[in-house]
Amino acid sequence: MKMQLTCPMPKLDFDVITLGHGSGGVLTHQLLDAGVFDLLKNDHLSNQHDGATLNLSGKTAFTTDSFVVNPIFFPGGIIGELAVYGTVNDLAMCGAVPKYLSLSFIIEEGLKMEAFWEILVAIKNACEQAGVQVVTGDTKVVDKGKGDQIFINTTGIGQVLDIANIAVSNIRPGDCIVVSDQLARHGIAIMSVREGLEFESDIESDTKDLSKVVEQAINKFGEDIHVLRDATRGGVATVLKEIADQSKLGIDLNYRDIPVNESVEGACEMLGLDPMYVANEGVFISIVSQEIAAEYVDFLRKDAASSQAAIIGTVTEEHPRQVIMTSAIGGRRVLSMLPGEQLPRIC
Amino acid sequence: MKMQLTCPMPKLDFDVITLGHGSGGVLTHQLLDAGVFDLLKNDHLSNQHDGATLNLSGKTAFTTDSFVVNPIFFPGGIIGELAVYGTVNDLAMCGAVPKYLSLSFIIEEGLKMEAFWEILVAIKNACEQAGVQVVTGDTKVVDKGKGDQIFINTTGIGQVLDIANIAVSNIRPGDCIVVSDQLARHGIAIMSVREGLEFESDIESDTKDLSKVVEQAINKFGEDIHVLRDATRGGVATVLKEIADQSKLGIDLNYRDIPVNESVEGACEMLGLDPMYVANEGVFISIVSQEIAAEYVDFLRKDAASSQAAIIGTVTEEHPRQVIMTSAIGGRRVLSMLPGEQLPRIC
Repeated sequence: MKMQLTCPMPKLDFDVITLGHGSGGVLTHQLLDAGVFDLLKNDHLSNQHDGATLNLSGKTAFTTDSFVVNPIFFPGGIIGELAVYGTVNDLAMCGAVPKYLSLSFIIEEGLKMEAFWEILVAIKNACEQAGVQVVTGDTKVVDKGKGDQIFINTTGIGQVLDIANIAVSNIRPGDCIVVSDQLARHGIAIMSVREGLEFESDIESDTKDLSKVVEQAINKFGEDIHVLRDATRGGVATVLKEIADQSKLGIDLNYRDIPVNESVEGACEMLGLDPMYVANEGVFISIVSQEIAAEYVDFLRKDAASSQAAIIGTVTEEHPRQVIMTSAIGGRRVLSMLPGEQLPRIC
Repeated sequence: MKMQLTCPMPKLDFDVITLGHGSGGVLTHQLLDAGVFDLLKNDHLSNQHDGATLNLSGKTAFTTDSFVVNPIFFPGGIIGELAVYGTVNDLAMCGAVPKYLSLSFIIEEGLKMEAFWEILVAIKNACEQAGVQVVTGDTKVVDKGKGDQIFINTTGIGQVLDIANIAVSNIRPGDCIVVSDQLARHGIAIMSVREGLEFESDIESDTKDLSKVVEQAINKFGEDIHVLRDATRGGVATVLKEIADQSKLGIDLNYRDIPVNESVEGACEMLGLDPMYVANEGVFISIVSQEIAAEYVDFLRKDAASSQAAIIGTVTEEHPRQVIMTSAIGGRRVLSMLPGEQLPRIC
């Protein structure tokens, strides 16, 4: 929270957000002028037009996400940075360097201005970290009881790296499955605070920018990286099952190789959750050529964002469309997608 | 509602949307596979990746809007088409031809599948009308009482026309202010149904695609069109005041020249509303060179989307930053921005 000291909240004659702040009139201008435009300033945003005009060329990645996480402040993060990193990471998974974001708020009447300001500061800091600019935005306010503090949509534009060739159709039998970090931290962090659970050690969300390490990895390994996907809602298991379905290939996993922090594993056991299905916000799955897999993991481990990277399995022609996990004692089970709802409003 | 007949709702084993449909797992896939992907299908969407990869070049417009309109079905429209046209029109106001949309839902648990389907069909039809493709999306579900049926974010990408040069800095004293249609219909339509008011005649929202007529106008009048803005939240008065502030020029308006439908005018009088501040969803303001203004209005009037176009005022060096309206009997009053909240959740 030290960042607040360098970014003092603007002096405003209101301390909660009201319906009028979504009117498009005087109060909306007050809210935006009082800080948003100044905090996030760049040439595009300063135009204050309904849209931004960008100079783009070549292959461009485009992705959207609405963030409805509850609570909006959670161990290790806050909805503002989650909203930036979530979309930035989706762009990275397309093999793109994130460039521009749109930012759209749906605020519930009564949100404290102080909370809104903290969210904005988190957005600003996350944008700086990821090297993206917020270039256009929107603010709506809904009546009390018709929203939940704040929902944020971010939609992102990125420049696809020439050398990138990310597509499920590139996967070949023998390819290795790599995860970039320990699993399940985001979901468990959210659940711990939401349910008022206390674990022995503090488990924090893994929300973070993945775009830098992914860009470096693509520049180094090029077409040997066949698929990139972040393992958010539904966890690693759901994403791998999707990939198996799309590629019509099978996936073999080894439980022993899956990196899970001890406290997280303990929490999962206590709650009856399988870490393979718990949401992550800072873990990506790579499917890469077998030849470079070991070197790829070494490369990822040198970056703080992926220091626990590990090969967890391989692609196979056997059992097409099935993801099969071999347990620590050699048993095998089929992993399906997350069947119901494990933990609503995780992101 | 005839459109439903040609787009039968898919047979699903659920008739309301539950939290599980936002899980990212099996139920999310069911919801999307059952209709969304098929209904909105295009090559980009079929990839089912986290983002779309587009080939863009040159000046690109980028804009976002979240739609929280209440009720979601209203006279003359439905949240689905509003969400498409709202963003499409913002792109048009940047001098761009709309190309691609992202589509993000925040659904309140319990929304009827039937309602969701109608919204999707409206989105599909509006996209066809406007010539845009939905290329990436997101679906979140929040618990009952933490949302209000459905909120929709659309974020759009458009190709700025080479000939377009839309900027407040292009405005010159003597320029004419043109509105494209009769004012205040959207706001009054929403208010009538929300408040259960009944007017003599049915007033319908003016939500519509403005991109086609704007594209044609730019191709014909080029740099003589200095500014384009749609007059949504805050109405024509708020937008003109913003422009006066930004340009540091004054604006003179004539009340007599402002096109307002008789029933709308009656409803406004009854409700104590000024049509200059009521939201529109199908009206745009143009500020154009005096030389072409009459021809410009004639041109707009030939298109059904702007058949009631009219010159309502001029830009002046006198009274900088002020918008001054001359009334029918010659009195003059200064128009400020919409001061509070006239009608929450109008779009």
